[in-house]
Amino acid sequence: MAQKIVIIGGVAAGPKTACRVKRLMPDAEVAIVDQDSLISYGGCGIPYFVSGDVSDEKELRNTSFHMTRDEAFFLKAKGVKTLTRTKALAIDRKNKSVQVENLATGAKESLPYDKLVLATGSKPNLLPIPGADLDGVFTISDLHKAVAIKERVAKGEVGKVVVIGGGAIGIEMAEAFTDLWGLATTILEFMPQLLPRLVDWDFARMLETHLKEKGVAVFTSESATAIEGENGKVKRVVTAQRTLEADLVVISVGVRARSELAQAAGLLVSPQGNIVVNDRLQTSDPDIYAAGDCIEVKNILTGKKGIAPMGSLANKEGRIVGDNLAGIPTVYKGWIGSFTMKAFERCIGATGLALDAALAEGFDAAAVTTAQSDRAHFFPTQAVIPLRLVFDKKTRKVLGMQGFGPMGDAVLARLDAAAAVIMQGGTIDDLSQLEMAYAPPFATALDALNATANVADNLAAGRLRYVSVKEFLDWMDDFASRPDWAALDIRHPNETKVFVEKYGAGKWVSVPYVDIRSRYQELPRDKTMLIICDAGTRSSEIQIFLDSVGLGNNLVLGGGFNVIRRLGVAWWPQS
Amino acid sequence: MAQKIVIIGGVAAGPKTACRVKRLMPDAEVAIVDQDSLISYGGCGIPYFVSGDVSDEKELRNTSFHMTRDEAFFLKAKGVKTLTRTKALAIDRKNKSVQVENLATGAKESLPYDKLVLATGSKPNLLPIPGADLDGVFTISDLHKAVAIKERVAKGEVGKVVVIGGGAIGIEMAEAFTDLWGLATTILEFMPQLLPRLVDWDFARMLETHLKEKGVAVFTSESATAIEGENGKVKRVVTAQRTLEADLVVISVGVRARSELAQAAGLLVSPQGNIVVNDRLQTSDPDIYAAGDCIEVKNILTGKKGIAPMGSLANKEGRIVGDNLAGIPTVYKGWIGSFTMKAFERCIGATGLALDAALAEGFDAAAVTTAQSDRAHFFPTQAVIPLRLVFDKKTRKVLGMQGFGPMGDAVLARLDAAAAVIMQGGTIDDLSQLEMAYAPPFATALDALNATANVADNLAAGRLRYVSVKEFLDWMDDFASRPDWAALDIRHPNETKVFVEKYGAGKWVSVPYVDIRSRYQELPRDKTMLIICDAGTRSSEIQIFLDSVGLGNNLVLGGGFNVIRRLGVAWWPQS
Repeated sequence: MAQKIVIIGGVAAGPKTACRVKRLMPDAEVAIVDQDSLISYGGCGIPYFVSGDVSDEKELRNTSFHMTRDEAFFLKAKGVKTLTRTKALAIDRKNKSVQVENLATGAKESLPYDKLVLATGSKPNLLPIPGADLDGVFTISDLHKAVAIKERVAKGEVGKVVVIGGGAIGIEMAEAFTDLWGLATTILEFMPQLLPRLVDWDFARMLETHLKEKGVAVFTSESATAIEGENGKVKRVVTAQRTLEADLVVISVGVRARSELAQAAGLLVSPQGNIVVNDRLQTSDPDIYAAGDCIEVKNILTGKKGIAPMGSLANKEGRIVGDNLAGIPTVYKGWIGSFTMKAFERCIGATGLALDAALAEGFDAAAVTTAQSDRAHFFPTQAVIPLRLVFDKKTRKVLGMQGFGPMGDAVLARLDAAAAVIMQGGTIDDLSQLEMAYAPPFATALDALNATANVADNLAAGRLRYVSVKEFLDWMDDFASRPDWAALDIRHPNETKVFVEKYGAGKWVSVPYVDIRSRYQELPRDKTMLIICDAGTRSSEIQIFLDSVGLGNNLVLGGGFNVIRRLGVAWWPQS
Repeated sequence: MAQKIVIIGGVAAGPKTACRVKRLMPDAEVAIVDQDSLISYGGCGIPYFVSGDVSDEKELRNTSFHMTRDEAFFLKAKGVKTLTRTKALAIDRKNKSVQVENLATGAKESLPYDKLVLATGSKPNLLPIPGADLDGVFTISDLHKAVAIKERVAKGEVGKVVVIGGGAIGIEMAEAFTDLWGLATTILEFMPQLLPRLVDWDFARMLETHLKEKGVAVFTSESATAIEGENGKVKRVVTAQRTLEADLVVISVGVRARSELAQAAGLLVSPQGNIVVNDRLQTSDPDIYAAGDCIEVKNILTGKKGIAPMGSLANKEGRIVGDNLAGIPTVYKGWIGSFTMKAFERCIGATGLALDAALAEGFDAAAVTTAQSDRAHFFPTQAVIPLRLVFDKKTRKVLGMQGFGPMGDAVLARLDAAAAVIMQGGTIDDLSQLEMAYAPPFATALDALNATANVADNLAAGRLRYVSVKEFLDWMDDFASRPDWAALDIRHPNETKVFVEKYGAGKWVSVPYVDIRSRYQELPRDKTMLIICDAGTRSSEIQIFLDSVGLGNNLVLGGGFNVIRRLGVAWWPQS
C-alpha cells in the first residue's frame, strides 16, 4: 500500500519536502495542509513586492518558468495534494492522524498518515506596548499583510512610516517605502546598532550611514514605548526620546517558532518553543519529522541549538526530510548563519559569528578589518569592500566574516567562500591559501579574502597591534583632552592637509608612507601614535618598521580611513 | 650581522617575498635582481592595457594608492634594494654568491647571500614553424611587448590580427583587439576547443559562440603551419585549411619555467624544467628557495606536480617563502587550478578538474550541468548561469566546477565557494548543504550551487540518466536517420511550436511539464525519449515519473535548452 505522508505547512520547507519525497517515492500519497489560501511563496521577496520591483504577488509564487505554484500546479505537476485554508487542529499520534478543519466550510476531517511532517514555520514576535493592535500597524507575517501594506501605500494613504526593528526585513521594508514610494521612513532599533548580533558595530554603522544618506531616519538604542492612534487608526509612535508621526507602522522584531501543535501532541519542544529534532530532522516521535522555521537547529560553530528562520535553510531541511522519509539517511550538518541583503546602493552580509557573539560564546576570538579593492585597481568597476574576519586566536579557526560594498556580487563571493571554509572547520591559514578565481576584472592577484586572512595571521602572531574603530572615534570625540595620543597619517599630503590644518601638525602628524624610513626621527616619542592610511595595510607595515627603530608606542587603525569615511563622522573636515 | 637575502626575479613572487621577509625581519638586507627595467607589474592586466581600458603601462605597476612600484619606491617604502637591468649569470652555491651583470654598463659583480630566492618566472612557448621570427609576430612575455603591440595598433598599422592559441590570454587579447580597436581578429586553437583542459567542451563552446557573436573568428582543431611575410614583416598565417591575412600575430601557446640558472647551479629541476621544491618552497639546496611560475607545485586533487603559472599563486608562494626565510614554518598546501576570465559581455571560469582531466587522472568521475538563475527570478538583474560540477562517484568528493554567465561576479561567487570546498576535501553533500548567503537580489533560496550538488547527488545515486550535450548534438545533426529516438519537449507549447513544425509531432513530442502525469499514455513506447526543458530540472522530475509508470526508456538533457541555445547550433529553428 502507498505510504501516506501528510505535511503541515505549505510555504518553504513543506513544499520542498513534498516534492522531494514524491520524486524519491513516486507512489507515495503526499498531502500538504495549510491554513492560508496562498502557499509556496518566496517570503523573502515581500519587500520587493511592496517596493514595486515585483508588480504582482503572483510573481513571488511563480516558478522560474513562470507558472504559479498553486493547488492545481502541485497536483498536476508534482502529484501532490494541497489542502489550503485548512487548519490542522490536533495530531492523534496513537492513531496516526491529523484532525483538520476546512476554514471555508467549517467541515472537519481526520487525515491518516504513515509519516507526518511539521513545517509550521514561525510567527512574528509582538511588541508588548499599547497600540500595537491599531489599524495601520503591521507585521510581515504572510503575503496577505504585504498585499494590504502595498494597497495602502499605492492608494496614497501613507506619507510617513515607522519601522520598528532594525533587522534585515525592517531595513529592506524601509528601503521599499523610501526608494520607490518616496515615503518619509524611520527605523527604530532598541539595540545600539542595526543588524544586532549579525554584524559588528562598525559594519552596522556603515550601513546606517548609507541609509541616512538615502533619507531614512535611523534611531538606535531607542525603543517604541507606545503606538498612538485616532479613531482606531495609527497616528504616531512614541519613544523615550521623541514622538514620530506615522500613517503606517511595521513591526519587525524577530520571529518565534509555531510549535503549538507539536506541543499539544506531546512532542519534545525546547524551552524557547522550537520543535526538537535529531540530525535526521526526526522529532521525538519517529513517525513525525519537522523542518523549517519551527525547528531547533544546531549552530555548527557553537554547538548550541536555536531557531534559524531562513528560507535558504528551510529548503535544505525540506530536502533532508524528503530523503529520510524515503529511507535515505541524510544527516543535517547544521547552520552557521550566512546572510546578505541589499540596502539601496550597498550590500552587506555576514557568515558565521560576529566578534561580540564569538566572545559571548566563550571563544578566544579576535577580529581584523580590511578595506581592499574587490578587483584590480585599474579595472573601471573597482570598488573598496571592507571585510571583517573573526577567528579564534588559539585554534586559528575561522569563526565569521562580514562584508560591505556597492550593490553587486563582490561581497557575496567572499562571504560564500568564507562560509565554505567555516562549514569545513577551516583555519585562517586555509583562508590565506584559498585559491580564489582570479583575473583583473574580478579580483586582485591576492584576493581581498586572502589578504584579510593574512592580516588575521599577523594579528594572531602578535605582529600587529590595533586601535579599534570605536576607540579611535572616542579619541576623535575627545581630541583636545588626550595630549598623550597623536595621529600619524601616512597618506599623501594632499589627503592629510585638511586634517593637519584642523588639528595641528603636532597632533595630526603627516609623514607620507614612502618617507617614514628617512624621516622617522621627526616622529613624537612622547605620544601613542595612531597610524592611519586608507586601508590599514600600509599602516601595519609602518608599525613593524617603527617597532624596529624603537618607536613601538603605536597602534594601527584597521581598515583605515576607507572604513572611517563610510561611518559618516561629524568631525571629518570639509576640503 | 644582518641576513643578506638576494631575490632573482622582480615581477610577482620576487617582490612579494622581498616585502614579506622585510616586514618579518626589518634588519635583513634584501635585494631584488631583474634583467628587465620594469618590475613588479600586473602581467594579467596586459590585455586591458592593450585594449585601452588601462591608458598607461604605469598603471599596471601602480599600487592601489597610486604610486609606481619602481626602484625608488622599493627602496624608500619597503627598504628593499632593486637591481634592474641586471642579469643573474650564475649561482656560486659553495661561496653563496650570485654573479650578476649590469646590462647597461656591462659591469659584473658578485652578490653574496645568506639565503637566495629564485623567482625567475616563465617564458612563452615558441612555435616551431617558419616565420615565427617575422616582424609583427609577438609573444606576451613582458610589458615591453605589450607596449610595442599597443603602439602598432594605435598608429593604425594593424587591420587584421591572428591570435595563435585559444587559452585565456589569447582570448583576452582577441577581445582587446576587437572590442576597442575594431580589428578583424581570428583565434586559432589546435585542440578541438577553446580553453583546453580548463573547461569541458560545452562550456568552451558557449564561450566560442559568444566570441563569434562579437565578431571574433574562431577556428578550433586547426594549427598554424607557417607564418609568412614580405620584406621581413608578417603578412599572413597559413593553416592546413586556409590562409589568414595578418598585420599582427600573437602567439600565446602556454609558458614554461625559466630554470636555466637553477639547472646550471645543480639544483634539482624536474624533467619538464620546473624547479623542484619541498612544501616549504625550499629547493634541493636548503639555502635557496623558489617561488612563482618557475617552480613545480603539487596539485591538491591529483597529487601530481607541474607548472602552475598564475599570478594569484605567485603571490601566495612569495608570502610563504618570506615566512620560511624568517623562520616561520609555513607550508604550501598546493593548488587546484582556479581561474576566471572576462570575454566581452560574458565571464567563464573554473576551479579544480574538468571532466576529461578527471577521467584522465583515473578518477571515477562524472559531471552534471545545470542552468539555473543566479538570483531570484523576479529580481531585475536575474540571469541564467550554467554550472558544471565534476565529482567522484565513489568518494563523492567534489573535483571541479565550471561556470559561464553574464559579466559580473555571480559565477565568481559559485567558483570561489566551490574552490573552498574542493581545497578542504569536501563532498557533494558538503556542497549541497553549503550555507550560501541568501537574499533575492543575490541568490535563490536554494542557491544554484546547492541545486547543482543536488543534481550530482541524484546522478551518483542512479536517480538520473543523462544524454550528454555532445550526444544530443550528434543526434540533432543526424536526425532523420535515428528513428529510434524522439525528443520529449516539456516546455510551454509556445516554445516547442517551431520545433514540432520543423521536425514533426512524432519525432518532437510536445507535452507540457504540468500535463505529463495526465497525458503520459500518449508518449511513444518504441523510442528512446530525450527529455528537454530549459534547465534540466523539470526533465529529471519527469524522468522519475516516467520510470515509475513503465516508460523508462528515456534520458535527460542536462542543462536543457538554456545550454543548447548558448551553443549557437545551426539547426535552431527561426521563430
